[in-house]
Amino acid sequence: MPPQTQARQRLLIKGGKVVNDDLSVVADVYVEDGVVQQMGPNLNPEPSTGLVVLDATNKLVMPGGIDTHTHMEFPFMGSRSKDDFYTGTKAAIAGGTTMIIDFAIPQKGCSLTEAFDTWKSWADPKVCCDYSLHVAVTWWSNKVKQEMESLVQNKGVNSFKMFMAYKDIYMVNDEELYEAFSCCKELGAVAQVHAENGELIAQGAKKMLAMGITGPEGHELCRPEEVEAEATQRAITIANAVNCPLYVVHVMSKSSAKVISNARREGKVVYGEPIAASLGTDGTNYWNKDWAHAAAYVMGPPLRPDPSTPGFLMNLLANGDLSVTGTDNCTFDICQKALGKDDFTKIPNGVNGVEDRMSVIWEKGVHSGKMDENRFVAVTSTNAAKIFNLYPKKGRIAVGSDADIVIWDPKATRTISAKTHHQANNFNIFEGMVCHGVPVVTVSRGKVVYEGGVFNVTAGEGKYVSRPPFPPYVYKRVRQREQVCQPVPVKRAPYTGTVSGASITRK
Amino acid sequence: MPPQTQARQRLLIKGGKVVNDDLSVVADVYVEDGVVQQMGPNLNPEPSTGLVVLDATNKLVMPGGIDTHTHMEFPFMGSRSKDDFYTGTKAAIAGGTTMIIDFAIPQKGCSLTEAFDTWKSWADPKVCCDYSLHVAVTWWSNKVKQEMESLVQNKGVNSFKMFMAYKDIYMVNDEELYEAFSCCKELGAVAQVHAENGELIAQGAKKMLAMGITGPEGHELCRPEEVEAEATQRAITIANAVNCPLYVVHVMSKSSAKVISNARREGKVVYGEPIAASLGTDGTNYWNKDWAHAAAYVMGPPLRPDPSTPGFLMNLLANGDLSVTGTDNCTFDICQKALGKDDFTKIPNGVNGVEDRMSVIWEKGVHSGKMDENRFVAVTSTNAAKIFNLYPKKGRIAVGSDADIVIWDPKATRTISAKTHHQANNFNIFEGMVCHGVPVVTVSRGKVVYEGGVFNVTAGEGKYVSRPPFPPYVYKRVRQREQVCQPVPVKRAPYTGTVSGASITRK
Amino acid sequence: MPPQTQARQRLLIKGGKVVNDDLSVVADVYVEDGVVQQMGPNLNPEPSTGLVVLDATNKLVMPGGIDTHTHMEFPFMGSRSKDDFYTGTKAAIAGGTTMIIDFAIPQKGCSLTEAFDTWKSWADPKVCCDYSLHVAVTWWSNKVKQEMESLVQNKGVNSFKMFMAYKDIYMVNDEELYEAFSCCKELGAVAQVHAENGELIAQGAKKMLAMGITGPEGHELCRPEEVEAEATQRAITIANAVNCPLYVVHVMSKSSAKVISNARREGKVVYGEPIAASLGTDGTNYWNKDWAHAAAYVMGPPLRPDPSTPGFLMNLLANGDLSVTGTDNCTFDICQKALGKDDFTKIPNGVNGVEDRMSVIWEKGVHSGKMDENRFVAVTSTNAAKIFNLYPKKGRIAVGSDADIVIWDPKATRTISAKTHHQANNFNIFEGMVCHGVPVVTVSRGKVVYEGGVFNVTAGEGKYVSRPPFPPYVYKRVRQREQVCQPVPVKRAPYTGTVSGASITRK
Amino acid sequence: MPPQTQARQRLLIKGGKVVNDDLSVVADVYVEDGVVQQMGPNLNPEPSTGLVVLDATNKLVMPGGIDTHTHMEFPFMGSRSKDDFYTGTKAAIAGGTTMIIDFAIPQKGCSLTEAFDTWKSWADPKVCCDYSLHVAVTWWSNKVKQEMESLVQNKGVNSFKMFMAYKDIYMVNDEELYEAFSCCKELGAVAQVHAENGELIAQGAKKMLAMGITGPEGHELCRPEEVEAEATQRAITIANAVNCPLYVVHVMSKSSAKVISNARREGKVVYGEPIAASLGTDGTNYWNKDWAHAAAYVMGPPLRPDPSTPGFLMNLLANGDLSVTGTDNCTFDICQKALGKDDFTKIPNGVNGVEDRMSVIWEKGVHSGKMDENRFVAVTSTNAAKIFNLYPKKGRIAVGSDADIVIWDPKATRTISAKTHHQANNFNIFEGMVCHGVPVVTVSRGKVVYEGGVFNVTAGEGKYVSRPPFPPYVYKRVRQREQVCQPVPVKRAPYTGTVSGASITRK
Repeated sequence: MPPQTQARQRLLIKGGKVVNDDLSVVADVYVEDGVVQQMGPNLNPEPSTGLVVLDATNKLVMPGGIDTHTHMEFPFMGSRSKDDFYTGTKAAIAGGTTMIIDFAIPQKGCSLTEAFDTWKSWADPKVCCDYSLHVAVTWWSNKVKQEMESLVQNKGVNSFKMFMAYKDIYMVNDEELYEAFSCCKELGAVAQVHAENGELIAQGAKKMLAMGITGPEGHELCRPEEVEAEATQRAITIANAVNCPLYVVHVMSKSSAKVISNARREGKVVYGEPIAASLGTDGTNYWNKDWAHAAAYVMGPPLRPDPSTPGFLMNLLANGDLSVTGTDNCTFDICQKALGKDDFTKIPNGVNGVEDRMSVIWEKGVHSGKMDENRFVAVTSTNAAKIFNLYPKKGRIAVGSDADIVIWDPKATRTISAKTHHQANNFNIFEGMVCHGVPVVTVSRGKVVYEGGVFNVTAGEGKYVSRPPFPPYVYKRVRQREQVCQPVPVKRAPYTGTVSGASITRK
Repeated sequence: MPPQTQARQRLLIKGGKVVNDDLSVVADVYVEDGVVQQMGPNLNPEPSTGLVVLDATNKLVMPGGIDTHTHMEFPFMGSRSKDDFYTGTKAAIAGGTTMIIDFAIPQKGCSLTEAFDTWKSWADPKVCCDYSLHVAVTWWSNKVKQEMESLVQNKGVNSFKMFMAYKDIYMVNDEELYEAFSCCKELGAVAQVHAENGELIAQGAKKMLAMGITGPEGHELCRPEEVEAEATQRAITIANAVNCPLYVVHVMSKSSAKVISNARREGKVVYGEPIAASLGTDGTNYWNKDWAHAAAYVMGPPLRPDPSTPGFLMNLLANGDLSVTGTDNCTFDICQKALGKDDFTKIPNGVNGVEDRMSVIWEKGVHSGKMDENRFVAVTSTNAAKIFNLYPKKGRIAVGSDADIVIWDPKATRTISAKTHHQANNFNIFEGMVCHGVPVVTVSRGKVVYEGGVFNVTAGEGKYVSRPPFPPYVYKRVRQREQVCQPVPVKRAPYTGTVSGASITRK
Repeated sequence: MPPQTQARQRLLIKGGKVVNDDLSVVADVYVEDGVVQQMGPNLNPEPSTGLVVLDATNKLVMPGGIDTHTHMEFPFMGSRSKDDFYTGTKAAIAGGTTMIIDFAIPQKGCSLTEAFDTWKSWADPKVCCDYSLHVAVTWWSNKVKQEMESLVQNKGVNSFKMFMAYKDIYMVNDEELYEAFSCCKELGAVAQVHAENGELIAQGAKKMLAMGITGPEGHELCRPEEVEAEATQRAITIANAVNCPLYVVHVMSKSSAKVISNARREGKVVYGEPIAASLGTDGTNYWNKDWAHAAAYVMGPPLRPDPSTPGFLMNLLANGDLSVTGTDNCTFDICQKALGKDDFTKIPNGVNGVEDRMSVIWEKGVHSGKMDENRFVAVTSTNAAKIFNLYPKKGRIAVGSDADIVIWDPKATRTISAKTHHQANNFNIFEGMVCHGVPVVTVSRGKVVYEGGVFNVTAGEGKYVSRPPFPPYVYKRVRQREQVCQPVPVKRAPYTGTVSGASITRK
Repeated sequence: MPPQTQARQRLLIKGGKVVNDDLSVVADVYVEDGVVQQMGPNLNPEPSTGLVVLDATNKLVMPGGIDTHTHMEFPFMGSRSKDDFYTGTKAAIAGGTTMIIDFAIPQKGCSLTEAFDTWKSWADPKVCCDYSLHVAVTWWSNKVKQEMESLVQNKGVNSFKMFMAYKDIYMVNDEELYEAFSCCKELGAVAQVHAENGELIAQGAKKMLAMGITGPEGHELCRPEEVEAEATQRAITIANAVNCPLYVVHVMSKSSAKVISNARREGKVVYGEPIAASLGTDGTNYWNKDWAHAAAYVMGPPLRPDPSTPGFLMNLLANGDLSVTGTDNCTFDICQKALGKDDFTKIPNGVNGVEDRMSVIWEKGVHSGKMDENRFVAVTSTNAAKIFNLYPKKGRIAVGSDADIVIWDPKATRTISAKTHHQANNFNIFEGMVCHGVPVVTVSRGKVVYEGGVFNVTAGEGKYVSRPPFPPYVYKRVRQREQVCQPVPVKRAPYTGTVSGASITRK
């Protein structure tokens, strides 16, 4: 791999099958200055000097993955997630992902803008691929509302996440949700929710501990899937009351996925995001006899003990009831997890995924025959780009699009392992999974950043990506409904009879 | 009809078909001292003197109805419901209902016991048939908990209602619900909920008024059925978290009924109570051009505009997915309703039903072929008796049972009308409905209190009926689950590795 | 246990808790001449001589079980089921079951009446408890119709089973189903179906064998649960088209149970019968490495590999979506099963159950907390009696009812095993299941036939029980619908315009 | 509009918003020789002479519609549908549709190839836009199988329709379905079904006539929606048994649509096609007092009386549960309909739609806010192109695609009426519907064939379009499943015990 100059990167990917979400076609792809310039058979871009040529014969050339949900170097539960924006994005690249969207999360009472600035200050010097930031709304006031507006208009933020869990820390109540959703709708932002009933979790945790259940299984037992499904139903109902599009992060259970699917059947604008963890493994791990193993899977909402969960979620992802995939990548090593060795409520919540998401979905989704390669592109990249208004710059290989590309060998296999992965963590929840489909080359903005196991990255070369409001994919319907679906008063003659209130006394 | 002495009432009902929930059989019924003493063919109780004989040939002899949900003389929304315990129970009797269960509802911060005493002091001198009282829990504290315990142990209360609507007035939040349900489970009481999301109603109402929708249609528009279904789902989830049986009062929508049915399929102990109004009419009335007509149907939760709602609910009632029927009888006349003539949020909520419930269910349920006469008895009387631990004293015609009986002529018809009904109200939401099946005689505790349109009642001759805790019909399963369904901790070697918390600073 | 004379059996069961489907109450039960004569506290029937007294303190006194579905000494698949009417009914009695309903099954083209007579001639000299016979309709003609009528009117048959599977042997097509259902409706009989798509089974079996799958797992693979669900849906649709009540025998899968539950929600008159096998074990056994073990579970429809099936079915049985329980008891020993050692399609279909049904349902249903003892009585006895018009003679302990009684010790446990069971078979599909709840005494028509492990039976002392048509529990609604739910033609002026047909030629 | 020569058609569409299924973008479109050559801002193709320029400012430039389901000049029910391939395709063009797929339907026992040739001979000289032909399989034999193979390999047919209705005419039974689906799967064709239970229709029709119901309402009463849902379930089950993709034509009911949606959730490869009629009107019309009006809506399966049907189907179409839209355009005028004036079973089945489909879907789908313009393109054109392997030649506006284009004015409105439509029929089932969104120009293969109400067409200038087998959109998953989802036999030691068959005699 020759060194590349920033000035004039020129890249030709030859002979691959270009896979977009609608079509696969054998074509060469010519890239210059980070953007796809030409696509077609037998391209011969001039001059040939300075041209990096990659042979993709018998390989798939796909849009790089977009991980919609990460938490790099996140200060959380008395610790800080292990992958920072450098190791985290490197790992992403190794897995074929070329963009992540992380979360800036203010404490209750604190400024959203400051949180955004803080997270950006962490990320900018470190990221090896493009990234963007969702911002969390963890409390409500006029100031919050103004900051949301400012973030949308000045900072390229078009999505806000509200927590229905983490009582007293991040959790907002129904009234706050209503306000936040209303504000999102006005601003053209996508409302996101962590959907779990935080009150029930708090009570459930107390109950489990009181029963002497202190291990990781208590984590799931205190918040079974109906706690997730309930909150999902509630969030959808509230969002619908204000005609606000809703995006449910980390769909972990069959029940919750059904709630989302049913809402979509009723015409509601709702998107569900299962994650690598919920698609690739399950909650039986919480009952593992090895505490460290069990603790490693602790995340919120938890993985579910029902072993048919991953296949069920993958079917809905294939079918269109679920839309996109993230990871909730938030890695803690065993020593950090051990903060909760005597009390599961103190185990830092989080798992890996940013590196392995594409492989896990290929294996469980494409290799299994549940979806084809085009739907794979849709759910790992295109749909995220559409929902967050990055399309077709991201999420598609087409003339004019960013050259964020993964070259995929569908015949090769690899085995996932903490021993070989590139994440900062010393545990991998997919340990031992043999995956068909291997990312062999990753291209970020036209630069080959990973090839055959070798990185060619520089911290900070990724860019923050602004996302304009009112993504058409999400908001066209919403705006039309605003115009045509408003109720009108019944025309009536006024009531002219007697009015009799009563001065009521209770006794 | 000869005068009767309290001392020794003796009654023989001859030749009727005795209809219980499991069987219909032609038999005479002999009653003495308010209790059924004998049943069988050709009874000839001695002495024949002083024996009142009723010929029930070709008629049905059924357990008197139990209306599980009334609000007599209820001080509410700046007015007071028109039917008091006298007119209300008279109307009940005229319709074949021989027991009502009303609600004692304290203000937030006020004593439950005092509310109970207050309501009882209103009822005792007036009731013409037996009655009991549910008590509402409208706030939470240790005192409330103690009062609940005392009411159960000393006052014969085995059911408590929590409101999820009426924000700032009666509404409790999820934490309070959790506590109240926990307490009910411990005490062996049935937890009842008014299931609507009060926050969404408050917001929706503001929105409608802001849009210029001030009429009764706004009442439904601001709280569409998903607002009810959401709360129902939430209540079920919370109740299940504490293994508490749940009773959902006034099921008004298909969505909510589906939520209940689905929960039952999963084994949850949940009962749904549709009411005469939701089984007999629908929410299209809110769009009636006549304000007074539209306002007369205002109740919470509202009737639904989907005209297939009543038939759907009746199917589930026939099928066993819904269990019992009440009325939410809470009558306001037009002049009272007019308090909200310029603002639907001020229309006192409530409709009639206590008199017509049995007829409406017979017409829409039995005459239509959706259920048979035995299921009719189950849903109008027996199941209520079982759930509230009155069975088989109430809810069955059998030796040893209270002689609360209605003689029903299934061939006769009557037309419901405010002109002829016995309620204090000047409007009837079932106006004009032709009903097959007419109550011709009503017997309360062995006394003929209504016959051929003529009352023979005395205010205060009804009795308050104590209901012991832990109704076996409800609680046997619950208690067994307590014993066998508890999670146990996984046995593991303790984690002995390093623990690394981090002293996190955010910047 | 003293010898008893037929002439004057007198029995007093003292101090037990009498459990009916609606209520449990501590009471003595006095029996004479095979019928319950008295119930109440402290009975002292005179004379005390000749009175058999059973102490039932701390035990439950329940209606004997009714097994709605057995195949004793059934000539089937080149063999004959091992339990004959003697060993079969003895086993039943040992398990607390006091009545079975077997199936008389004519070959295609053969007389139903002759089949009935044949089966009756097998049963009468052997049965140790009461029994009745369903009759199968395996083909269609006017003669079949006449025989159905005659069986109903002269032989006490009120139920007919149609097979949608067993192509070329018993299977009837949609047209024949339509005719049979129509005939059942007219005669007041209950239509029963074996619901599997026989065409798909035939094709599936060929396919599996062609793939080299010859073992018992092929039996399930060739007829997965959707094959059952499809036929169930179809049968319900056809039955509903003629307003005929439908009874689905052996509900084996979640899918099929859901179809039934959904139909009931829509008001259809449908009953589902899960069996001991589907409630107590599952289809993972077909993948057992031991051929003999795997083959022992072969029955049609097969048990399902989804291990959540039994719990799911039990929830619906508890909830009322499923109604009754049978066993499909049709035992073949290993040597008989071995007819299919090289080809799963030749393994005689059938499993045990008649002895263990009550215990399995108690363990998985009552001990687990899914249902209470009263619902247990409903689903093991009362509902069967109601559906097949035997109630309250059977299915209830009440004055006037047959003294078919089991005394149940809910505290005791027993372990099911082929080594100790009383069936003729050398394998038990519930082997090793520890069951709470043990039948300690069984009483058949007032005679103690089993006590503490000792039988006191005589072949042939059971009676054939006639079942009159038009069971009210089933048919009241059906008949009412016939009267009130018929469509009427729209009244229109006749069309008076031109009519233009075309003499069409295709080219 | 100047005359155009075939030789060198050159067309520039300027300033419009080009709407594809994934994106809308303002761009010029340059067309030459029937194919899109360039897309982008400010195109200036040289030479400017001979260039037809269309100003599309403020208009939408969309792929022409593909009507997946028509029956032009179809000899059926003693008549022949009124629109032939000339008037039918003209009407299509006027509505913005540029391709139809009709059905060649052999009689039972007749050659599929001959039917194909016959239909092609009718169409070729008349069609004004491109077309293709599905072929029906109305019986089964080895010859049929060979003809299917030949049609796929030599005639460009990749879809076959099987009728589950029209007993004795077109209906095939389950065994034939199984064979036909198996054959489709082998050949890489899409299996289509008309899903109604033909047996129930035949019986239901007899029953209705016997009850004196002879008018059009009888048409729906004899085949209510469960008759459609049952067959849909059955077809899906059978198709799944052979891993064959299934396409359900004319989805008319909520029940059937739910069956399809549920199957998709389980991962089945099933596509549902609602039609203009089921999306735009409903079955209450069968109860119209005017016979001619009511009869005009008669089609099979019938429209449904539930008025919420169209909105429900549109929600599923928006959501992705339903995939494409056709019309079942099969017009008969009132005089033809009058063949059934005394007997609804003789009313020729069929309605209009080919002209108005796009407008109806825009109005009810896009204008209502249920879907956006991109989803509109997907369901009216792109998805059909993908399923039938025409993509991206058809179904997309992109360089290299056929220039089948409609220019759409989303601000304009038009009122549908038989008085102004271009179909041969004298009735329009959408009469009076005001539609936002008007097709102002239609371009077929680069030629302006309709502009501002004026046609510029020549009979026969449309082309038959061959469709290659194994559409990747449909078959990639199917083929992968073939490879990875096959069951394998359990490895076991052979059974070595005794085998005991019995020589059974029945008596």
